[in-house]
Amino acid sequence: MEKRVQEFLSPTAEESERVGSLVVLPHRTGKTPSFFEGFALLGVRIDRIEPGFVCCSFRVPPRLTGADGNLSPGAIAALVDEVGSAAMLADGHQTKVSVDMSIAYMSPAKLDDELEITSRVLGHKGGYSGTVVLFKKKTTGEVVAEGRHSMFGNFLSKSKM
Amino acid sequence: MEKRVQEFLSPTAEESERVGSLVVLPHRTGKTPSFFEGFALLGVRIDRIEPGFVCCSFRVPPRLTGADGNLSPGAIAALVDEVGSAAMLADGHQTKVSVDMSIAYMSPAKLDDELEITSRVLGHKGGYSGTVVLFKKKTTGEVVAEGRHSMFGNFLSKSKM
Amino acid sequence: MEKRVQEFLSPTAEESERVGSLVVLPHRTGKTPSFFEGFALLGVRIDRIEPGFVCCSFRVPPRLTGADGNLSPGAIAALVDEVGSAAMLADGHQTKVSVDMSIAYMSPAKLDDELEITSRVLGHKGGYSGTVVLFKKKTTGEVVAEGRHSMFGNFLSKSKM
Amino acid sequence: MEKRVQEFLSPTAEESERVGSLVVLPHRTGKTPSFFEGFALLGVRIDRIEPGFVCCSFRVPPRLTGADGNLSPGAIAALVDEVGSAAMLADGHQTKVSVDMSIAYMSPAKLDDELEITSRVLGHKGGYSGTVVLFKKKTTGEVVAEGRHSMFGNFLSKSKM
Repeated sequence: MEKRVQEFLSPTAEESERVGSLVVLPHRTGKTPSFFEGFALLGVRIDRIEPGFVCCSFRVPPRLTGADGNLSPGAIAALVDEVGSAAMLADGHQTKVSVDMSIAYMSPAKLDDELEITSRVLGHKGGYSGTVVLFKKKTTGEVVAEGRHSMFGNFLSKSKM
Repeated sequence: MEKRVQEFLSPTAEESERVGSLVVLPHRTGKTPSFFEGFALLGVRIDRIEPGFVCCSFRVPPRLTGADGNLSPGAIAALVDEVGSAAMLADGHQTKVSVDMSIAYMSPAKLDDELEITSRVLGHKGGYSGTVVLFKKKTTGEVVAEGRHSMFGNFLSKSKM
Repeated sequence: MEKRVQEFLSPTAEESERVGSLVVLPHRTGKTPSFFEGFALLGVRIDRIEPGFVCCSFRVPPRLTGADGNLSPGAIAALVDEVGSAAMLADGHQTKVSVDMSIAYMSPAKLDDELEITSRVLGHKGGYSGTVVLFKKKTTGEVVAEGRHSMFGNFLSKSKM
Repeated sequence: MEKRVQEFLSPTAEESERVGSLVVLPHRTGKTPSFFEGFALLGVRIDRIEPGFVCCSFRVPPRLTGADGNLSPGAIAALVDEVGSAAMLADGHQTKVSVDMSIAYMSPAKLDDELEITSRVLGHKGGYSGTVVLFKKKTTGEVVAEGRHSMFGNFLSKSKM
């Protein structure tokens, strides 16, 4: 049992080397872009922006699939975080810090599946905001996942942005 | 507004180039390791394994921080997925597919923060299993995040494992 | 501090007497109706039923408000459970056991507020099913709460229903 | 199908009459106790209170069981709300409004099952606080449910309470 857990949590030598050889420099907070965000977002195309609503397209890339060949639950969560935050911006709010996220994984998205990712603001309550992010397969309309992302911020007025 | 959304969802030219230059080949399902899993897991050290329980250490690496310099919500979710699944294995079960995940983000983990990540099985209900994953700062004991991860599987008997 | 906790968790003498005087007999499983379900559901009016979709109206009654005068989070959860299950039935599935529920509370619903409660099936994955339940104020369209309810069942074929 | 949905969402005549005959007067906000809270809480016995931690006992009463004879998911949510808030008070904080709740239902609790309900504060982040509530069967230690409850408040100083 211990051996299986160890194997499961240990990248193979090949993957360790590949990930370890990535040179990601610590960035200065808020000053430089984030490698992780680029890693999650590269390939997301924005199709439509409305107040409190964003609609995107995304083709599942090899870098975000898990050992089962499907878009990884963690990658879906990273997209819920980013695309949910984009709906906040589309509502004229600033980005905020994540406080709660929950995701239902309904159907696997395979490599090269073309997805529609829509994000909409549920509402605001003081500095707290809720968004919902829906992942569907473009060809069938089947729901891949639904995520909810609650954020909180206590920022200065918009005029100070 | 549209411009801010577009900027937010677009990696910078530099990050696009860096991520785009990663050569990640589609892997054969279940046959080859996953780049994404190695990307999330590299650096996780297992400290203790007990039935239904796993305790790990992890130092926040630059590759998993967001634009605010903290361990990204999506990276935390990827770790909830993987370390939660490891607790399943430590309970003598096979890994299963994710059905629900929810995470409360309590306190930011900064670059180089040393974290303790513990994962334990809540229980099993038919083919459905629940796990809880807790992220704490080693120095202060402060909770960084708590995640819950529900999985479902309908696999062959353990003897086939 | 202890005193405040004790007071908080103790119904007043008047409420204890009123609740204690309810004579609720243990019902035979699956044979007799449930007092709790009637308590949560009384007053729910069905406006529309479509495959995988149910739309209801509900006026917030005094019995379901908390000490702050608003529809209680627990009562909202009870409605997510029941109205979410109804969407399952509207999709030709049987009711199933709850496995995961998550709710974002966006805006208080006050006594006598008229709500629209819509419930739709997200999808099915083996015996597992996901539903989403949305509570809105009829007059303003404001979102009161959004709930997600995952269920699991391993029942006989529909012909046996 | 429509008929099944209608039957499912309609209390029986007997239950309608019983619930309808409850005379619950609208209470003045913050002034009078809540029938719903007494309905959920009656029978909860506090065993231990520590800073940020509350441990209670509860025997499943007939009034909170569903049609399947088990403690209803909605009743569990009402207890997560109340007992989670009690842990907040036990941490020297005021009660706050619910913003997010999520629950994993692991094992049914039957009528008259004796439960241990523990609630602990995960942490505070500005006005936002997280709590975790765990339901176990006293005889077996089996987990019935785990809930997470996030609250938010922006109240005056404690001296003003």
